[in-house]
Amino acid sequence: MLGKMMYQPLTISSVIEHAGRYHGDTEIVSVETAGGLERTTWGGIERGARRLAAALERLGLEKGDRCATIAWNNRRHLEIYFGVAGAGMICHTINPRLFPEQLVYIINHAEDRVLFLDKTFLPIAAKLGDHLKTVEHVVLLGPRDEEAAAMVDGLKFYDELMAAEGDDYRWPELDELMPSSLCYTSGTTGHPKGVLYTHRSTVLHTVAGNQPDGLALSAKDSVLPVVPMFHVNAWGVPYITAANGSKLVLPGPGLDGASLVRLIDGEKVTIALGVPTIWMGLLAALAESGSTAESLKRTVVGGSALPPSMIPAFRDKYGVELIHAWGMTETSPLGTLNQLLEKHQHLAEDAQAEIRLGQGRPPFGVELRVVEEDGAVLPDDGVSQGSLQIRGHWIVDTYFKAEESALTMDGWFDTGDVATIDADGYMIIRDRSKDIIKSGGEWVSSVELENIAIAHEGIANAAAIAARHEKWDERPVVVAVKVPGADVSEQDLIGFYDGKVASWQVPDRIVFVDELPIGGTGKVLKKKLREEFGDILMS
Amino acid sequence: MLGKMMYQPLTISSVIEHAGRYHGDTEIVSVETAGGLERTTWGGIERGARRLAAALERLGLEKGDRCATIAWNNRRHLEIYFGVAGAGMICHTINPRLFPEQLVYIINHAEDRVLFLDKTFLPIAAKLGDHLKTVEHVVLLGPRDEEAAAMVDGLKFYDELMAAEGDDYRWPELDELMPSSLCYTSGTTGHPKGVLYTHRSTVLHTVAGNQPDGLALSAKDSVLPVVPMFHVNAWGVPYITAANGSKLVLPGPGLDGASLVRLIDGEKVTIALGVPTIWMGLLAALAESGSTAESLKRTVVGGSALPPSMIPAFRDKYGVELIHAWGMTETSPLGTLNQLLEKHQHLAEDAQAEIRLGQGRPPFGVELRVVEEDGAVLPDDGVSQGSLQIRGHWIVDTYFKAEESALTMDGWFDTGDVATIDADGYMIIRDRSKDIIKSGGEWVSSVELENIAIAHEGIANAAAIAARHEKWDERPVVVAVKVPGADVSEQDLIGFYDGKVASWQVPDRIVFVDELPIGGTGKVLKKKLREEFGDILMS
Repeated sequence: MLGKMMYQPLTISSVIEHAGRYHGDTEIVSVETAGGLERTTWGGIERGARRLAAALERLGLEKGDRCATIAWNNRRHLEIYFGVAGAGMICHTINPRLFPEQLVYIINHAEDRVLFLDKTFLPIAAKLGDHLKTVEHVVLLGPRDEEAAAMVDGLKFYDELMAAEGDDYRWPELDELMPSSLCYTSGTTGHPKGVLYTHRSTVLHTVAGNQPDGLALSAKDSVLPVVPMFHVNAWGVPYITAANGSKLVLPGPGLDGASLVRLIDGEKVTIALGVPTIWMGLLAALAESGSTAESLKRTVVGGSALPPSMIPAFRDKYGVELIHAWGMTETSPLGTLNQLLEKHQHLAEDAQAEIRLGQGRPPFGVELRVVEEDGAVLPDDGVSQGSLQIRGHWIVDTYFKAEESALTMDGWFDTGDVATIDADGYMIIRDRSKDIIKSGGEWVSSVELENIAIAHEGIANAAAIAARHEKWDERPVVVAVKVPGADVSEQDLIGFYDGKVASWQVPDRIVFVDELPIGGTGKVLKKKLREEFGDILMS
Repeated sequence: MLGKMMYQPLTISSVIEHAGRYHGDTEIVSVETAGGLERTTWGGIERGARRLAAALERLGLEKGDRCATIAWNNRRHLEIYFGVAGAGMICHTINPRLFPEQLVYIINHAEDRVLFLDKTFLPIAAKLGDHLKTVEHVVLLGPRDEEAAAMVDGLKFYDELMAAEGDDYRWPELDELMPSSLCYTSGTTGHPKGVLYTHRSTVLHTVAGNQPDGLALSAKDSVLPVVPMFHVNAWGVPYITAANGSKLVLPGPGLDGASLVRLIDGEKVTIALGVPTIWMGLLAALAESGSTAESLKRTVVGGSALPPSMIPAFRDKYGVELIHAWGMTETSPLGTLNQLLEKHQHLAEDAQAEIRLGQGRPPFGVELRVVEEDGAVLPDDGVSQGSLQIRGHWIVDTYFKAEESALTMDGWFDTGDVATIDADGYMIIRDRSKDIIKSGGEWVSSVELENIAIAHEGIANAAAIAARHEKWDERPVVVAVKVPGADVSEQDLIGFYDGKVASWQVPDRIVFVDELPIGGTGKVLKKKLREEFGDILMS
């Protein structure tokens, strides 16, 4: 027997329809690529999305076809998010910082038929040209531009495509399990892999990720996603703000601290989201400008480990609450958010900050576990370290075009992180599985060793790697870059670890280098360091 | 092409599993039917729910079987909510205030196999006895009780059933479209009709109804549902608090103001939910006790029209925000919630209160419209009055065992209310369709006329009805009950309408009666009044 309630598919078109109908006047502010602020509303975005869908159908695109974007956070990109998915096509957001060969691989693998580009990234398209096997239409996000037209054969212009359409397009009915967007994740080895989100996974992520202990965006908020729209659906912010009618402030290309301060004060931003480096720049710019960021209530920080100083820096001077969050391309991305429980409310600020430094707990809709190498599930005791695995409504099952499931035999996704989880579900990432150092059967966190090295005033950057060792299998070695002109020796830095970690965790060697090898997504290529320095302890 | 994300059914067992795993220590406080507070946790409820599921299977119940409850808001009732639905059976909550013949009809129509009863309601079961054709097991919610056993043949005891089970029950996998709970709605005409909620509709209602502009319950809250658990899923509170790890305070049978004040202060309640009459009692008890209800931040009020004085009464003296909400059995129930938009934040308190008096706007997941009698859709302009219709993920499609859909030809549910909707989606109920008075083609709201009459110091209660009229088809007549000893004449009350409504909306007659006829659910039976006074204007 089945129940007797209405059945409607969970679709992205229903999200933008809600925004257009019930929040039609709420402002969308967009910093244009050419400079200057543009203002529209959710009503304008909803109409724009429908026009775009009509334009794509006129170009001959069909349901399931992929449309790529290489673009900043701006109004046209937002229309593409909703217009492409609403029409049943797939919005494929691409990170412009990838190496050209990765871009070519991804676009060909996705078989993108359309490539939407901000003018900033036009040189990329011009250079890739003939290597792109499936792209039929390159569309510049803006009005006709003769300089641009000269760079790319047959270049189309977004504003011209839109002007040719009316307002009568109606969203098609879709199966909620149909794909809506696509994002590639690039590991340090192998080809990038695509995660193909569905309408259902996106809508469930939208509502379950925005509970009061989640992102908690409301119609009273002015939301600034500094996290790029090419970075895992901008953490779901475009969908969540549409479903809840928040004002949205899209910062375009200007992500420096001073530009963000102007936007925050000018648009009365209440919540901003981004990676830690962005907030370092913001804090510096706030101090310089004398702004108190009066409207700002919360920042949501994710994407990489949080510097401990950042929580009090926001809290004490600006009264801003910092919410640490964790996720990955494979998890849509909201996996955990760090909001306190009632029992934490009465703790001292420092004790609260200690908890807030961790990655937080999962919202309803996802579950976490840590497992040993043999697959045995470890207890949620806050101490047992193991491979972090996740499952839930918005977690990858199979990579795009892959033949095999991405999951364990019992249906969990292994994140590649090593973590602990406590009894309340608070998870702390201790290391990446492939980076952790296993000395005499005990785990040493490379992240922890790096954080200590970087805290030394003479050290600009550091990477801890496992070096092979005859007796202990592996021992930690730190590869470090000095601050220009700093006078720090190997013995100085080794001594700096005293009392900060157990003595057996202190690195055996420090190797100074001029710079660390960095990959296309800005991460240190530890594999390269292991190749170079992995045998340094072998006689 | 389908997407590549994990698919998991949206089930109620996943909600209670989340609560047990990530909020296992969070307290559930329950006022027992016999008096006294009982304390357990979400972990305890999760284990109790699994034990109950095992006990029901041991009694021979199968998926799809109905289990009825006639019970207060307490710990055992909460275990039944999750245990019955989690096992794939259907939790059928029954309003004990219904007339005996309605109870018999509902239980037989639902074919309930089990009837769970609080001791308060044991006399009901004893009286209905032989009329119940399908009930195999009557279970008293408590330990063995010889006095009770003497009243009902073969009475079983909840605590004994539970004691016979272990902790090893595992939730079955279910289709998300399977039914999870059942609630009957009793109109003033015809038989009660059952709404059969699904796991999917319930879980979507849980997450979409709890956005920051919705109920907004978090793990930092202590939540007091005064709304009964037999009243449309207690507005979703049991599910929402489980999914978000709120502390839950279940008030049992003591719903008087003084008891509620003690619970609010003792359990540091932050949010309480219920009907207006409950809050009238609470406000009186607060004033008497001298309590400032310090912990209380919000009350959510629904179920019937909100007295305008209640918003400032809570706001000014206690700093409590009042959220008006609207819904019905057919809508799970959350249809609208009245939270302000950013643009309302800067209005004066009185202007905000004016907006807050309306029923509010729909969350993402449901849509509203108003239509004319011929089905033409009216504009959302805040002025056009029409029949209120609703559709969405948690709205009824077909009543239980009905052969025909409950919907319009184009798939909307007609609520039977007359309403306006403004451009932001704020809906105001103007009247019930069957109660509205149509004079010369124009609508006169019976609710508005009643509110004015009741505002007169000499009037205790009033009902406005349509009386037949030769020239205008219908004209308003008010049937009123005087305050004992009050000296108010028909002309006095007619004069009292001057300047409060347009002159053509002033009632033609006032009829004084000793009391108004009240139905089983506490509503005035206007049909009876129309039978008695409907021809009073005909010569």
